[in-house]
Amino acid sequence: MTPRARTLFDQAFASEGMLDVFCDHARLQRLLDFEAALAKAEGELGVIPSRVAIPIASYCNAGRFDFARLAREAALAGNVAIPLVAALRDSLAHDDAEAALFVHFGATSQDAIDTGLVLQLRDALDLLDADLKRLGDALAGLVTAHQRTVLLGRTWLQPALPVTFALKAAGWLSALGRNRERLRQTRERVLVIQFGGAAGTLASLGERGLDVGRLLARELKLALPDLAWHTQRDRVVEVATTLAILVGGLGKMARDIALMMQFEVAEAWEPRAVGRGGSSTLPHKQNPVGAAAMLAAATRVPGLVATLLAAMPQEHERGLGGWQAEWESLPEICLLSSGALRHAIHVIEGLSLDTDRMRANLEAARGVTAAESMSLALAPLLGRAAAHSLVEAACRAAIDQRSSLLAVLSEEPEVASRFSRSELARLCDPTAYLGLAEELSSRALAEYARISGRSAG
Amino acid sequence: MTPRARTLFDQAFASEGMLDVFCDHARLQRLLDFEAALAKAEGELGVIPSRVAIPIASYCNAGRFDFARLAREAALAGNVAIPLVAALRDSLAHDDAEAALFVHFGATSQDAIDTGLVLQLRDALDLLDADLKRLGDALAGLVTAHQRTVLLGRTWLQPALPVTFALKAAGWLSALGRNRERLRQTRERVLVIQFGGAAGTLASLGERGLDVGRLLARELKLALPDLAWHTQRDRVVEVATTLAILVGGLGKMARDIALMMQFEVAEAWEPRAVGRGGSSTLPHKQNPVGAAAMLAAATRVPGLVATLLAAMPQEHERGLGGWQAEWESLPEICLLSSGALRHAIHVIEGLSLDTDRMRANLEAARGVTAAESMSLALAPLLGRAAAHSLVEAACRAAIDQRSSLLAVLSEEPEVASRFSRSELARLCDPTAYLGLAEELSSRALAEYARISGRSAG
Amino acid sequence: MTPRARTLFDQAFASEGMLDVFCDHARLQRLLDFEAALAKAEGELGVIPSRVAIPIASYCNAGRFDFARLAREAALAGNVAIPLVAALRDSLAHDDAEAALFVHFGATSQDAIDTGLVLQLRDALDLLDADLKRLGDALAGLVTAHQRTVLLGRTWLQPALPVTFALKAAGWLSALGRNRERLRQTRERVLVIQFGGAAGTLASLGERGLDVGRLLARELKLALPDLAWHTQRDRVVEVATTLAILVGGLGKMARDIALMMQFEVAEAWEPRAVGRGGSSTLPHKQNPVGAAAMLAAATRVPGLVATLLAAMPQEHERGLGGWQAEWESLPEICLLSSGALRHAIHVIEGLSLDTDRMRANLEAARGVTAAESMSLALAPLLGRAAAHSLVEAACRAAIDQRSSLLAVLSEEPEVASRFSRSELARLCDPTAYLGLAEELSSRALAEYARISGRSAG
Amino acid sequence: MTPRARTLFDQAFASEGMLDVFCDHARLQRLLDFEAALAKAEGELGVIPSRVAIPIASYCNAGRFDFARLAREAALAGNVAIPLVAALRDSLAHDDAEAALFVHFGATSQDAIDTGLVLQLRDALDLLDADLKRLGDALAGLVTAHQRTVLLGRTWLQPALPVTFALKAAGWLSALGRNRERLRQTRERVLVIQFGGAAGTLASLGERGLDVGRLLARELKLALPDLAWHTQRDRVVEVATTLAILVGGLGKMARDIALMMQFEVAEAWEPRAVGRGGSSTLPHKQNPVGAAAMLAAATRVPGLVATLLAAMPQEHERGLGGWQAEWESLPEICLLSSGALRHAIHVIEGLSLDTDRMRANLEAARGVTAAESMSLALAPLLGRAAAHSLVEAACRAAIDQRSSLLAVLSEEPEVASRFSRSELARLCDPTAYLGLAEELSSRALAEYARISGRSAG
Repeated sequence: MTPRARTLFDQAFASEGMLDVFCDHARLQRLLDFEAALAKAEGELGVIPSRVAIPIASYCNAGRFDFARLAREAALAGNVAIPLVAALRDSLAHDDAEAALFVHFGATSQDAIDTGLVLQLRDALDLLDADLKRLGDALAGLVTAHQRTVLLGRTWLQPALPVTFALKAAGWLSALGRNRERLRQTRERVLVIQFGGAAGTLASLGERGLDVGRLLARELKLALPDLAWHTQRDRVVEVATTLAILVGGLGKMARDIALMMQFEVAEAWEPRAVGRGGSSTLPHKQNPVGAAAMLAAATRVPGLVATLLAAMPQEHERGLGGWQAEWESLPEICLLSSGALRHAIHVIEGLSLDTDRMRANLEAARGVTAAESMSLALAPLLGRAAAHSLVEAACRAAIDQRSSLLAVLSEEPEVASRFSRSELARLCDPTAYLGLAEELSSRALAEYARISGRSAG
Repeated sequence: MTPRARTLFDQAFASEGMLDVFCDHARLQRLLDFEAALAKAEGELGVIPSRVAIPIASYCNAGRFDFARLAREAALAGNVAIPLVAALRDSLAHDDAEAALFVHFGATSQDAIDTGLVLQLRDALDLLDADLKRLGDALAGLVTAHQRTVLLGRTWLQPALPVTFALKAAGWLSALGRNRERLRQTRERVLVIQFGGAAGTLASLGERGLDVGRLLARELKLALPDLAWHTQRDRVVEVATTLAILVGGLGKMARDIALMMQFEVAEAWEPRAVGRGGSSTLPHKQNPVGAAAMLAAATRVPGLVATLLAAMPQEHERGLGGWQAEWESLPEICLLSSGALRHAIHVIEGLSLDTDRMRANLEAARGVTAAESMSLALAPLLGRAAAHSLVEAACRAAIDQRSSLLAVLSEEPEVASRFSRSELARLCDPTAYLGLAEELSSRALAEYARISGRSAG
Repeated sequence: MTPRARTLFDQAFASEGMLDVFCDHARLQRLLDFEAALAKAEGELGVIPSRVAIPIASYCNAGRFDFARLAREAALAGNVAIPLVAALRDSLAHDDAEAALFVHFGATSQDAIDTGLVLQLRDALDLLDADLKRLGDALAGLVTAHQRTVLLGRTWLQPALPVTFALKAAGWLSALGRNRERLRQTRERVLVIQFGGAAGTLASLGERGLDVGRLLARELKLALPDLAWHTQRDRVVEVATTLAILVGGLGKMARDIALMMQFEVAEAWEPRAVGRGGSSTLPHKQNPVGAAAMLAAATRVPGLVATLLAAMPQEHERGLGGWQAEWESLPEICLLSSGALRHAIHVIEGLSLDTDRMRANLEAARGVTAAESMSLALAPLLGRAAAHSLVEAACRAAIDQRSSLLAVLSEEPEVASRFSRSELARLCDPTAYLGLAEELSSRALAEYARISGRSAG
Repeated sequence: MTPRARTLFDQAFASEGMLDVFCDHARLQRLLDFEAALAKAEGELGVIPSRVAIPIASYCNAGRFDFARLAREAALAGNVAIPLVAALRDSLAHDDAEAALFVHFGATSQDAIDTGLVLQLRDALDLLDADLKRLGDALAGLVTAHQRTVLLGRTWLQPALPVTFALKAAGWLSALGRNRERLRQTRERVLVIQFGGAAGTLASLGERGLDVGRLLARELKLALPDLAWHTQRDRVVEVATTLAILVGGLGKMARDIALMMQFEVAEAWEPRAVGRGGSSTLPHKQNPVGAAAMLAAATRVPGLVATLLAAMPQEHERGLGGWQAEWESLPEICLLSSGALRHAIHVIEGLSLDTDRMRANLEAARGVTAAESMSLALAPLLGRAAAHSLVEAACRAAIDQRSSLLAVLSEEPEVASRFSRSELARLCDPTAYLGLAEELSSRALAEYARISGRSAG
C-alpha cells in the first residue's frame, strides 16, 4: 500500500478492467505510447533520424519511471507530461544522446496527454460495450422467458394495471440498445489523435506536420481530426454524457429491483452469496448491495458531468483551469460506469423472481387494477363520467372494506343489472388485461437484435 | 402582464422563436395536437366512431381553455393533461356528447404530455439547426477571410506562438460542425411518439393498440418506438446533453471574444449599437453583453443537465418526482441554447477585428513567441537542454530589460557566432512561424462543408 | 395571459407568497425601493437637494413602467437597472427636471439590482421561516401523538428493527430545526445592502459615500457591509445552499411517505381531496402528488446550486457571465423551496396513518426483526458467531417456510433447551424491542423547542 | 505503488495534510477509534465487562489489517465496517475470546463509519482553518501594504474606474473572513457522534444507550446529538456546501490573478520557481499553475456538491444508494479545498506586483476612467443627459484618435469655456478618483480582525 492510497472503494464502484485502464501506470503508459508512436512516425518520414525511433520506443515503458517523483514534479510544472518527457529524455540521454534529442519532437504536453486519454477511452469503450452486450443478452433472456409472468404494474408507486415481467425487462433492454448505439456514434467522433504542437499550428514541424499526424494516427489506430482540439472539448465531454445516460438507465433498473425486493413486495432478489449484503448486527439482513452501488453511481455521475460541461469554455489556444478539471473527473465517470454495469450484470444474471408472489400482489390489489377495463365496459352504458365515478367509488369501497372490486360491483345494481356474474369476473380478472405486453416485448427484442448487429458490424 | 409573470429576462437569454415553442400556449397546443391526432387515428381504424374525430379535433385549440384554471387544477391533479382532457371533454360534451366520450381514448396523461414535448422538441431542433447553419456560415466566412490575419496564440493566458485568426475561428467552426452532427443523430432517436396507455401495455385498446400507434405516429410525422418510454428517459435527456455540449462550445467562443475585447488586448469587439452594453453611470463603457449572455448560458446549462440525469432512475411503470423534475428543466435548456446561439450569431456576424492591434500585440511580446523556433535552431548546435536554457534566459532578459529576443540573442556570443544578423532576424520574426495554420483551417472548412451537406440531406 | 407566459407549473412547484416575491413586478419594485431610499438618504445628507427625494420616491412605483419595453432594453443594455433608471429619469423629467438629475446618484446598476435582490430574499426568508415553523409544529404534534405507534424500521429497504412513528417523525423534525438555525445564521450574513458605485469605491460621492451607505441601509432596514460585494457572491450563494439542504430534507420526508403509501405497505397516505392525485384513465388512483412535488424539488435544486457555485469566480470589480447566471437561478431555488415546503405542510397536517397496518407489516416480517435481540440473548451461551449464524439460518427458514422466527427457534434444540416458550415469545416479540425510541423522540422535541425559541428571539 | 493506484494528481489538487486525513489508512483508523472508544465507554458503564475495553482498544490499529482483503469484502458486504469489525473480532478471538465477543457491541456499521467520518472532518476543518488563517494574514498584509497602489478597476472585463490593489485584496479577505465564520458554525453542528444501532433506537443496549452515547461522545471529544442521523444527512452535506463557497471565493481570486498575469496586462505574477509553470516545448513560458489548480477546484467542487445534495432523500432508517454516493464525494471536496487553499497561500505569499505597470495600464486607458467624474462635474452645467452624451463621445474620440480624454475635452468649447486647463487636468487625473478605497479597505481589515478573534476564541 502506498501511504496515501484511496482505493478502499474501488471494487465497490468500478470493474477490475476499468481500474486497470485508468490506474496511474496505464495513464503514463498511454502517454508514452504516444511518444513512441510519434518517434516512429517522425523517423519514418525522416523528420527525425530514422534510427532513433527504436531506442526512444524502448524507453517508453511506464515501469521505468519514478511515479512519486513525477507526481511531485507534475504538481509544480502544471501537467504530468512535462516531467515525464524530461525524465524520458534524461534516462535515454545516458545511453543514446542523439535519440534523447528527438523525444517529443514537435509535440506539446497536451498532445501527449490528450492522445493518451483517447487511448484509455478506447479501452474503456471496448470494456463497456462488451459488458453492455453481456447485460443485453441476459436481459433478452429474461424478456424471452417471462412473456407470461404477470405482475402488478405500478405508477407513482401505486397500483396501475397488470403488466408482464417481460415488458419490464424489455424497457431496460430497449434503453440499453440505444445506449450501445450512442456509444458507437460517440466512439466514431472521439477516437482521434490530439496533435497540434504548442498552439495548434504544428509550427515546429514545418511542412511535415500533417504527414506526421497521418502516420501517428495510423500507428495508434486512431483517426486524424481536421484540427487540434486543445480547447474544443466536445469529443471527450460527449463520452461523459453518453456514459451518464447509460448509468441513468442502470439506476432505473436498480431502483425497480430494489423496490421489488422490499419485504412487503418480495417479487425479486439479487443473487445471494456468503458475505454479500449482510449486516454487522442484524443476522436476518439480505441487502441489495448491487442495486445500491448502481444507484450510487447514478447519483454521482450527473454532478461529474456538470463539471465537465462547466469546464468547456476554455481560454484561447490552451485553457486555464478547465482542462485540469477534466483530468480526474472523466476517468471517474468511466470507473463508475464500469462498476454500475458489472453490478447490473451480476444482479440480472443471478436475479431470482417469485412469480407466485407477483401474482399474489396483483390479487391483493383487490381487483382495482381492473378498474380501467371495468370503466371502459360501463362507459357506453352509463356515460364515461358516470362510469368513471362509479368505478372509482367501488375501488375505494373494495379497499376500505377489504373486499374486492368484483364483490363490490356485484352488489351494485347499475352493474349487476347489466353483466352476468361470469362476465363481471372476466372483466375483473387482474391477469387478463395485459394488452399488447407480449407483442411490445417482442418488438423490443427485435430492435435490440438489430442494434446489436450494427454494433458488432 | 399576468400578475406573476417572470419574463423580464426572456429576451436576454432566449430567442423569440424558442420562447414561442415553449410558452404555455404552445405546450397546451402540442398536447391537444396529440389528442386530435389520436382521435383521427382511432376514428380511421374504427376504434372509436369515425365521425367523432372531426369534432374532437375542432375543440383541440389551446385558445379555448382557461389557463389559470388549468394551472390550479394541474397542481392538484399532479399533471396538466388530467384537467386539460377533462376540460376538453366538458366543453365538447355541450355540443357533441358522443364525441366527448371518445376523447383521449386509450391513452394516459403521460402519452399526451410526452408526445407534446417531442413535438415541441422537433420545433426546437429545427430552430436550432437553422441558427447553427447561419452561425456556421458566418464562421466559415471568417475563416476564409482571415487566413493571413496573424495574432498571438495564447495558452494558459500567456503568450505561446503566433496563430491566425482563421485558425481560431476554425476551431469554433469545427466544434459547431460536430454539434450539428450530434443534433442530427439525437433527432433520429428522439422524434418518436409516446404511446402506452396507463402502464405501457396499451391494454384499453385491445388488439388495436399498435395499429393506432402507427397511424398516430404517421399523423404527427413522428416514429413509432418499440415500446412506451414512460420511465426510460434517455431520449429526452440526450437532447439536453447534446444541447449542453453545444452551449459549452458557444461559451468557449464567448470567452475568447471577451478576452480579446479587454482594453489591454483590444483585438476584437462585439458590434456596437445604441443602448447596447452601456452603463448606468460610466459614459465610456462598451460591455460585451453578447459574450456575457453566452457565458451565462454555459454556466447555467450544466446544472440543468445534472438535474435531468439525476432524475433518470424513475420508478416502475411511471415515476414519482423524476418525471416532474423534467417539466421545466428541459425547456429551460432549449431556451438558454437558443439565446446563446442568437447572441453568437449577432456577435459573429457583426464582429469587428483590429488586425493592426493583433500584430502590435504579437510584436509587443518582445519576440518571445519565436523562442521555440530559435530553440529548435540551436538544439543541433548546443544540445537541446542547453539550447532551451539559453533561449529561456534570453526571453526573460528581453522582457525584464524591455528589449527583444532578437536584440538579446544578437549579444549572445554562442548565438552570434553561429547565425548572421539576418538569419537571426528571420528566425525571430513573430509572424513567420505559422506552421500549417492555413492548411488546417482549410481542413476545418472542408469538414464543415461535408457535415453541412449531410445535415441538409 | 402574456403571449409567452410560462407559468403553467407555478402552483405545482411554488407557493403563492413566493411567486409574489419573485414576480417581475416585485423585482422591479424592489429595485425602485433602492432608488427611493437612496434619494432619501442623499437628500437627508445634502448630497443631493433635500427636496428632490420626495418626487423621486413618488415615481418609484413599478406600476408606472412598461415591462415589455424594459425587458427588450435590458436584453440590449446588459441589465435591467439601466433601462429602468433611464425610464425613471425620463418620466420624472417631465414633472421635475431637477429631481430627474439626481436619480440613482452615485450608485451603479448592480448596487440597485443586488440590493433589490436582498430585499426579495428577506421576504423569501420570512415566508420560509414562517412555513418552517408551521411544519415544525405539525411534526412536533406527530411526534407527541405517536410515541407508542410501532412500525417496521427499514434499512436498505429491508426490514431491520421495530421503531416508532414518533422516532421517524422526530428525524424529520430534528433536521428541520437545524435548517431553521442555518437560515437564521445565513440571514444575518445576507441582509446587507450592496453599495459601491461603479467600481466599489463610492468615488462619485466623494467623502460622503459611507454616510450615504449608513442611511441607505437604515432606510431599508439592512446592514451596511464592510465593502461592496459585486464580485464576492458568497452571501447570496449561501442562501442557495442553505435552502438546498432544507429541500433535501423535505425530499427525504417525501421519499419516506411515498414508500409508506405503496399499496403493499399502506401505512400512510397524503390527504385526499377531489381532483387530487387522480388519473386521466385509471379510476382507482390516489397518487402522492405532494411527495412527487417535493421529490421533484429535491431533484432540481442541487443542479441550480451547482450553477450558482460554478458562477462564483467572477472577474475583477464586476463579472461577465457569472453574475448574469444568478438572475434566474437563485429565485428558482427560492420558488422550489417554497413549493416543497407548502406541499410538506399540506401532507403532514393532513397525513393519515394506518397504525393497524403498521403493526401487521411488522408481524408479517415473521419475527425476523427480533433476530438481533435473540442473537444477543444467545451470544453469551453459544458464542457470538455461533449465535449469529444460528439466528441467521432461523430467519431464512422462517421466511422460506412462511413460518416465524419464534416457531423455528422453538424447534431448535440449542435454543429450546435454554429458554422456556414464554421467554422465547418475549424475546421474539416484534413490538417489544424499541430501545430508547421514546426518550430519543423526546430529546428531538426538546431540541426543536430550544431552536424555535432562539429563532423567534 | 499499488498496482492500481490513482494518485498522480494528488499533490496537484490536495494538500499533504488533507491527503493524510483521507487516505485509506486514516479512514480505517478513525473507524477503529470509534470501536475503541465504544468499548471503553461500555466497559466503564459495565455494559460489557470492564476489563475487555483495553484488549479491544489495543487491536484497534489500522496497521494490523489487510486492506486489499477489506476492500474486496467491503464491495460484497455493502460497506467497509462489516468486514473490518469481523476481522477485528477474528484477530482478537485468538488472544482473548471474551473480548472478541464485545467488539462493536450495540452499534451498527453506519455508527462506526459516520463517526469515523466526523473525526476525519474535524481534522479536515482544523487543517483548513489553520490555512485560512495563514491566507487571511497574508491578504491582510497585502491590504495594509497597498493602500496607495492604484490600478485600473475593471468591470465586464472593460475599464471602469481606478481602484487600489488594497481594495481588490480586501474583497478577497472579506470573503475569507465570512468563510471562517461559516466554518465555525458548520463545525458546531457537525462535530457529533453517530450512534443509534441498527435502526436508530439503540435497542440492543436496553436502558443504557444514552449513557453509552454520552461517554462515547466525551471519549471522542464530540457532542451527542438528539438522535441518530443515519438518513438525515444535512450536517455532513453542510460541510460540503460551506467548503464549496470557500473554494468559489478562491476561484474568484485565481481568476483575478490569472487575468492580471496576462502578458498584455502584466500587473501581477505568481511566484517563480525552477520547474514551475514551464512548458514541454516553449522556453519562455511562465504559466499560472497555482491559479489553474484553484480554478480547476472551483470547477470541480460544484458538481460534487450537487451529488451530495441529490443524495439527501435517503430511505427510511438507512438509505440505499444515497449514503454510498457520499463515501468518496465528500472527501474529494475536502481534498480539493485543501489543495486550492494551499495554492492560494503559495500564490499570495509570493505574489509579485508591478505597480508601475498598473499605473501605466491606467494611463493607457486614455483618461476614460475619468469619464464619470467629468460627467458629474458637467451635469449641473449642461444637464445630466447632455453631460453624459458629451463625455461618452469624447471617450470614443479619445480612444479612436489615440488621444486622451483630457486632450479631447480641452478642444470642446462647451467644456473649455467652463473649466480652466488645470481644473480639467485635475478632473481627468486617473489616479485622483479613488473615492473611499482606503477607508473601505480598512473596514475590511477591521472586520477580518473581529472574525479572526472570534474564530480563535
